[in-house]
Amino acid sequence: MAKKIEGTPKAHGFRMPGEFEPHQGCWMIWPERTDNWRLGGKPAQKAFVEVAEAIAKYEPVTMCVSHRQYMVARESLSENIRVVEMSNDDSWMRDVGPTFVKNNEGKIRGVDWRFNAWGGLLDGLYFPWDKDDMVAKKVCDMESVDYYSLEDFVLEGGSIHVDGEGTCIVTKACLLSPSRNPDLDQEAIEDMLKDYLGVEKVLWLENGIYLDETNEHVDNIIHYCAPGVVALAWTDDENDPQYPYSKSAYDYLTSETDAKGRKLKIYKLHIPNEVLITKEESEGVDAVNGTLPRNEGDRQAASYANFYIANGAVIVPMFKDEVHDAMAKETLQEIFPDREIVGIYAREIILGGGNIHCITQQQPK
Amino acid sequence: MAKKIEGTPKAHGFRMPGEFEPHQGCWMIWPERTDNWRLGGKPAQKAFVEVAEAIAKYEPVTMCVSHRQYMVARESLSENIRVVEMSNDDSWMRDVGPTFVKNNEGKIRGVDWRFNAWGGLLDGLYFPWDKDDMVAKKVCDMESVDYYSLEDFVLEGGSIHVDGEGTCIVTKACLLSPSRNPDLDQEAIEDMLKDYLGVEKVLWLENGIYLDETNEHVDNIIHYCAPGVVALAWTDDENDPQYPYSKSAYDYLTSETDAKGRKLKIYKLHIPNEVLITKEESEGVDAVNGTLPRNEGDRQAASYANFYIANGAVIVPMFKDEVHDAMAKETLQEIFPDREIVGIYAREIILGGGNIHCITQQQPK
Repeated sequence: MAKKIEGTPKAHGFRMPGEFEPHQGCWMIWPERTDNWRLGGKPAQKAFVEVAEAIAKYEPVTMCVSHRQYMVARESLSENIRVVEMSNDDSWMRDVGPTFVKNNEGKIRGVDWRFNAWGGLLDGLYFPWDKDDMVAKKVCDMESVDYYSLEDFVLEGGSIHVDGEGTCIVTKACLLSPSRNPDLDQEAIEDMLKDYLGVEKVLWLENGIYLDETNEHVDNIIHYCAPGVVALAWTDDENDPQYPYSKSAYDYLTSETDAKGRKLKIYKLHIPNEVLITKEESEGVDAVNGTLPRNEGDRQAASYANFYIANGAVIVPMFKDEVHDAMAKETLQEIFPDREIVGIYAREIILGGGNIHCITQQQPK
Repeated sequence: MAKKIEGTPKAHGFRMPGEFEPHQGCWMIWPERTDNWRLGGKPAQKAFVEVAEAIAKYEPVTMCVSHRQYMVARESLSENIRVVEMSNDDSWMRDVGPTFVKNNEGKIRGVDWRFNAWGGLLDGLYFPWDKDDMVAKKVCDMESVDYYSLEDFVLEGGSIHVDGEGTCIVTKACLLSPSRNPDLDQEAIEDMLKDYLGVEKVLWLENGIYLDETNEHVDNIIHYCAPGVVALAWTDDENDPQYPYSKSAYDYLTSETDAKGRKLKIYKLHIPNEVLITKEESEGVDAVNGTLPRNEGDRQAASYANFYIANGAVIVPMFKDEVHDAMAKETLQEIFPDREIVGIYAREIILGGGNIHCITQQQPK
């Protein structure tokens, strides 16, 4: 009962709503690959459960899981959470799930981008990724949501942020990477974003978060919080390699206007103290040829901007960094006075290469 | 959002509706095991598609399919049919799916019986069957339907037929088989049926269809068509080994009354001419240790009683047996004057050990 639609969302009057608009629910995928998640995935699963349960207090959550782990997920999660079988290569629903678009009558459709594990054979993070690439279709089919399917255009949901009113923010580091759509130039890519997200203006940051293995997804450095309002990952330490990335983004965004001609209000979210992989953590991951290794001492791309906006709440990663954790929660409460700010200790998620925004995908109401 | 419920449907005011009551939709599973379905399952898949498309004209159909065959199923079926991933050991949704029960307020719950591949290690048809045994739970969870889960009681949906008004018909050959619930006697099994189907009276036929490998499921020999009305597989040939089975069932049913004290009206559906496996058909099946072989010359348990009642239609197996096919359609039209009678050539399904009723499971409205 889900049809594959020809044409583009823009031509049909569909646009991607802002994450802060009302949700039907949230989709996630259960983590299990032992060459990315330490100790057979058990610590990560615990963290994913905490995220899912936190979100489920505010909106319905569906957890997709392989048959192999189905009973584990089912028994680990409360009955509030729907569990459905879905094969996967890893657990990044933001990047492999559908991007939902909506029209003025409140009708929802999906966009099924091509997924290549953040870089395919050039600098992708694992091989193969065929199961991941089918997740968006399967979600749409299960929900009887019609969808657009792009055979040739590679994009991950974490590489875009929209205000729902015509503006999209991306990074050049990711979208212009030769490992995504090397045959398209910036203008051609911008046209695709306009057509498939229903936006009029694309803002191009240079970079994302230092050492972010996704080629610096935009959702780790900024978050659209409301039309005209963004949260930006920041550091005051001019010697931190993140400083020029965040400074450049700040300068660019203050100099630009959005699709409606508004100046942006920018809230700074200071990054946590360095998160480095410990020896014990590194040793818990199966070393496998073809999958990005997790080496002792590697700096993780930790950022508070990688939060999830649920109906009535914001679910934000915490790093047991007393000062910056508190600052992040305070700033978010200022940005979202009417939402509860829920912190989840997320070290086990960032060890796998992403955070709360990366492992969730909202379905608009 | 699906809760596992303690207690029994009967205690909670739930009963299994008759198949002729209105449906929400129909569930099926895509066939693929090459040690049961010839030629890699391709001819059977074609027949399953015909059944699914026929039903989908009258009510929504969901096809469950393994990841491996997902794209094959998706591309083979029209967009009217929802396709969802679900691991399985074979494709008998009647037997592995939930039995849905309903209360007076129209609320639906599932019953998740224990499944052991029609006989477990004693005379089961394949090993293992763990994926099949999880299908009922997964369907309920996907649909957010609360369910009763029986850890210790083995039953298949094809071994029961109800009138929705207190009566259930079963066969002793199946339900009293030592390969199902050997520690329970007839009375104890009857109590379970009463508790979990919400019935007051159980009618016990001795046998089902000759050589039926399910230990003679009731759904191959009779079909409840309405309260007080059953269709019975029949033969006039007294030398046919089916004759004593059908005669005994006929004599028993004419001598009995249902839970409401009514005599039953019995319509005879003459079985088709013998369906024997050809050499070519046998050779198309992978011979595998532990799976029931499909030998040349084996008589199949072909019966017109194995039909599916959809909203507004009856989908009935045809065997390219001009005389009996026509007789079956005529009789069914007489029983169901307001439903369209749709015949589907079902040789490829019976070759796998069952028929249209066996591969479908209705979800009541």
